[in-house]
Amino acid sequence: MRLEVVNTGTELLLGKVINTHAAYFGQELFKLGLRIQRQTTIPDGIDIRSVLSEAFPRCDVILVTGGLGPTSDDITREVVAEMLGRELQLDEAILATIREMFRVRGLRQNLLNDRQAMVPEGAVVLENPHGTAPGLYLPADETVGSPHLFLLPGPPRELKPMFRDLVQPALIRILGEGAELPAWRNFRIYGVGESALASTLEPLLSGIESLELGYCARLGEVDLRLIGEGDSVEAASAIVRREFADQIVVESETSIEEVVVGLLTDRGEAVATAESCTGGLIASTITDVPGSSVVFHRGYVTYSNEAKSILLGVPEEVIAAHGAVSEETVKAMAAGCLEASDADHAIAVSGIAGPGGGSEEKPAGTVYVGIASRGREVFAKRYFYPVDRISFKQRVVRLVLDLLRRRIRGIPLD
Amino acid sequence: MRLEVVNTGTELLLGKVINTHAAYFGQELFKLGLRIQRQTTIPDGIDIRSVLSEAFPRCDVILVTGGLGPTSDDITREVVAEMLGRELQLDEAILATIREMFRVRGLRQNLLNDRQAMVPEGAVVLENPHGTAPGLYLPADETVGSPHLFLLPGPPRELKPMFRDLVQPALIRILGEGAELPAWRNFRIYGVGESALASTLEPLLSGIESLELGYCARLGEVDLRLIGEGDSVEAASAIVRREFADQIVVESETSIEEVVVGLLTDRGEAVATAESCTGGLIASTITDVPGSSVVFHRGYVTYSNEAKSILLGVPEEVIAAHGAVSEETVKAMAAGCLEASDADHAIAVSGIAGPGGGSEEKPAGTVYVGIASRGREVFAKRYFYPVDRISFKQRVVRLVLDLLRRRIRGIPLD
Repeated sequence: MRLEVVNTGTELLLGKVINTHAAYFGQELFKLGLRIQRQTTIPDGIDIRSVLSEAFPRCDVILVTGGLGPTSDDITREVVAEMLGRELQLDEAILATIREMFRVRGLRQNLLNDRQAMVPEGAVVLENPHGTAPGLYLPADETVGSPHLFLLPGPPRELKPMFRDLVQPALIRILGEGAELPAWRNFRIYGVGESALASTLEPLLSGIESLELGYCARLGEVDLRLIGEGDSVEAASAIVRREFADQIVVESETSIEEVVVGLLTDRGEAVATAESCTGGLIASTITDVPGSSVVFHRGYVTYSNEAKSILLGVPEEVIAAHGAVSEETVKAMAAGCLEASDADHAIAVSGIAGPGGGSEEKPAGTVYVGIASRGREVFAKRYFYPVDRISFKQRVVRLVLDLLRRRIRGIPLD
Repeated sequence: MRLEVVNTGTELLLGKVINTHAAYFGQELFKLGLRIQRQTTIPDGIDIRSVLSEAFPRCDVILVTGGLGPTSDDITREVVAEMLGRELQLDEAILATIREMFRVRGLRQNLLNDRQAMVPEGAVVLENPHGTAPGLYLPADETVGSPHLFLLPGPPRELKPMFRDLVQPALIRILGEGAELPAWRNFRIYGVGESALASTLEPLLSGIESLELGYCARLGEVDLRLIGEGDSVEAASAIVRREFADQIVVESETSIEEVVVGLLTDRGEAVATAESCTGGLIASTITDVPGSSVVFHRGYVTYSNEAKSILLGVPEEVIAAHGAVSEETVKAMAAGCLEASDADHAIAVSGIAGPGGGSEEKPAGTVYVGIASRGREVFAKRYFYPVDRISFKQRVVRLVLDLLRRRIRGIPLD
C-alpha cells in the first residue's frame, strides 16, 4: 500500500515552525506496518493542486495536513472537491458546532469561519474537538482515479487526536481484515561506528531473506533496525547479539541514560559526577530521567583548577605536575568525588572542548575520563573527539554513560 | 529563482528523527531573499532518481541532503552522476582526508568509507570539517537540463557549517551581481509571549510599508524578525526598541548564554551555580560558550537535601520547616553558593520537574529561583511551568539566565 503525506503551510517553509508531522505520522504508521513513501511540504495556496495531481496515480492513500482554516489561502477543501468533481455542500452540524465554539469562547463569529462548514459530497466528516475546522475523509474513487484522501488540520494538538481516534481505524479498515504487521527490532549500539557495523554485519546477514536493515547514527550511538518477516528478524537478531554482545546498550529505543538509571536503581546504587569540560551536562543528562533522584544525589562542576582542589581534593601538585587535563588529575577527581559523596560510582571528566585551549600534545578534543567504584581500582583513559564544542560535550556524555554501564554490568571498560 | 529542497533519509519518514533541515534552510534562505517552493522527503535508496527527474525541469536550484554516507543505501552521488552523464572519479584529496580522520581517531579504515571519495566529473567539492563525506556542488548544466544541484550531508552539525560557509556564498553568486538582499533585523525577546508581542506591535507597525514581520516562539524566548526595505526595518526597529527596552536580550540571533557570558567578561565578574531541579543544565548551558571558563569556575548540582546542606550550607531546619522546594531554601542555596565560591553572582534553583513529586500546594512545574550578588539582597521568586520534564529544565535555564542578565544590566528583576 503506497502512502504519501502532503503538508501545506508557508510557515513550515519559512522556518518559523518545525514540521513534526512527518515524524509523528511515521511513528504511528509504522505500528500498522505502513510507511510513508514520500512527504512533501508546499506553501499555502494553489500548489496543492499540482502536488495532488502528481500523487494521485501512484498512491493508495494520501494524508494532507493544513489548508482547512478560515483564511483566503486555505483552499485544500475547494481544490479537492474540484479535482474529484464534487459539489461543496454546507454541513449544518459543522456550522452549528463552529458557532457554538465561538459563543463559548466569547468570540465574534465571522463569515470566514463559515467556509469551514463546507463539505465535498460523499466526504466523511472527521470531528475536531480541539479546533473549528473538521477533518475530511474522501474514500478512493476509481471513476476519477483518486486514492483514499484524508484532509487533516495543521496544528498538532488538533491533528494528533484526530489521527489516533479516526484516521488510524480507517486505515486499518482500508488495509483489510487479517493484514499482517511486520516484525521489527531496534538495537542501540555504542562504541562501534556506522560503517564498521555495516561492514561486519552486512556479509553475515546477506543470506537472510525478507530482511531490511536501517541505520541511524547519532553522536556516539548507532541505532540498527531490523525489519521484515518474523523469522528473518529473529535470525538476524541472533547474529547481531553474537557479534556485538558488549556494545549493545539495549534492544529497544531506550536512551543510554535511562538504561544506566535503570541498572543503578535495580542494584540500589548511586553515582556522583565530577565534571570539567562537560560543564554539568553529564549530571543534567542523568537527571533528564524521571526518578533519577534515587540514584543521583550530587554532582560537581569543577571548571577551575581551584575548584578541582577544593571540592574534590585533587592535590595542587598533581595539577601542577601533569596539568588539569591528564590521567592523574582525572583519577584524583574520580577518587575524590567518590570519597566526598555517598555514591557507589563516580564519573570524572577533564578535557579540552575547544575551539581554544589546545596544545600540540593535547589538542582540542582531548579528554580524560575516570570511573571510580567502591572496592575497585580507578579506571582512567584518554579519548579524542575533534568535533565542535557542543558535539564534543554530547559525545563525552555518551561515552562516560556507556563506561558506567559496562562497569555496572561487569563488561571490560577497555 | 525557484528553489526546492529534497531530504533523503528513511529515519525521517519512520519518525526516528525530526526533520529540522527545512526550517533551518527556510530561515537562512530568507536572509538572501529566497524561499523554498517545495520540500520533499524520501527514503534512502532509489527514489532520489524519480524525485530529481520531476524537479529538474521546474527548478533553478535544488538542495539535496543525505545519501552521501558510506552504507549501501547512500546512493545520491551515484544517481546524480548517472543523471548528468558524468563519470565518478576518485578524489585523492578527499580520500587522504578521510584516511587521516580515521587515523587521528584511532579507527580502522574500511573500504566502505572510500566510496565517499568518489566525485562526479565537474563537481565542486564542499569541504566537510565535521564528518567524512564532503558535500558536492554541480552547477546547472543546460545540455542535460539540470539546475544547480547542491548535495549536502544529512547530520545537522555537518550540514549547517557547510551551508553557511560554502552554499550561501555560492547561492549569492548564482543570484548574480547586484542582486538586492532584503534588510532584516532579529530581536531576541524574553519575558513577553508571542501573542502579547503581536498585539502590542502590529497596530504600531501597520503604517510602515514594505515590512514583513516574522515570529518564532521557543521555550522562554521569542524571536521577532523584521524584513523589508532598509528604511522600513529601521523605522520599525525604533518602535520595537521603545516598546520592549528591558525585554530585548539582544538585536541579533546571539543566544542568551552568549549574552550573559559576554556581559560578565566585560565586567570581569564570575557566576557560580547551585542547581537542584535543572540538574546541571544551567552550568552546562553557560559552559557551551567558548571562553566561559573566565566567568564560570564552579557549579554545584545538589539533588538531595543532604547535598544542599553539606555543599551549600543550607540549614537542615530550613529544609525541614519549608521544604527543599521553597523560597527560604533557594535563598539559602544562592547565599551559600556565593559564600562558598569566589564568584560575584550565584544562581540557585529548586523545583519539581515532574512528572512525579508534585503536591497540591506545589504541583510539578513549580520552581523557586534565587539570585545572589555581592553587596545586594538575595532575590528569590516562585515560577510555574507545567510542561514536560525536559522542556521545564530548558525553560528554567532561560529564565535564570535572563534574570542574571537583568541583574548585571541593572534592570529590575521583578
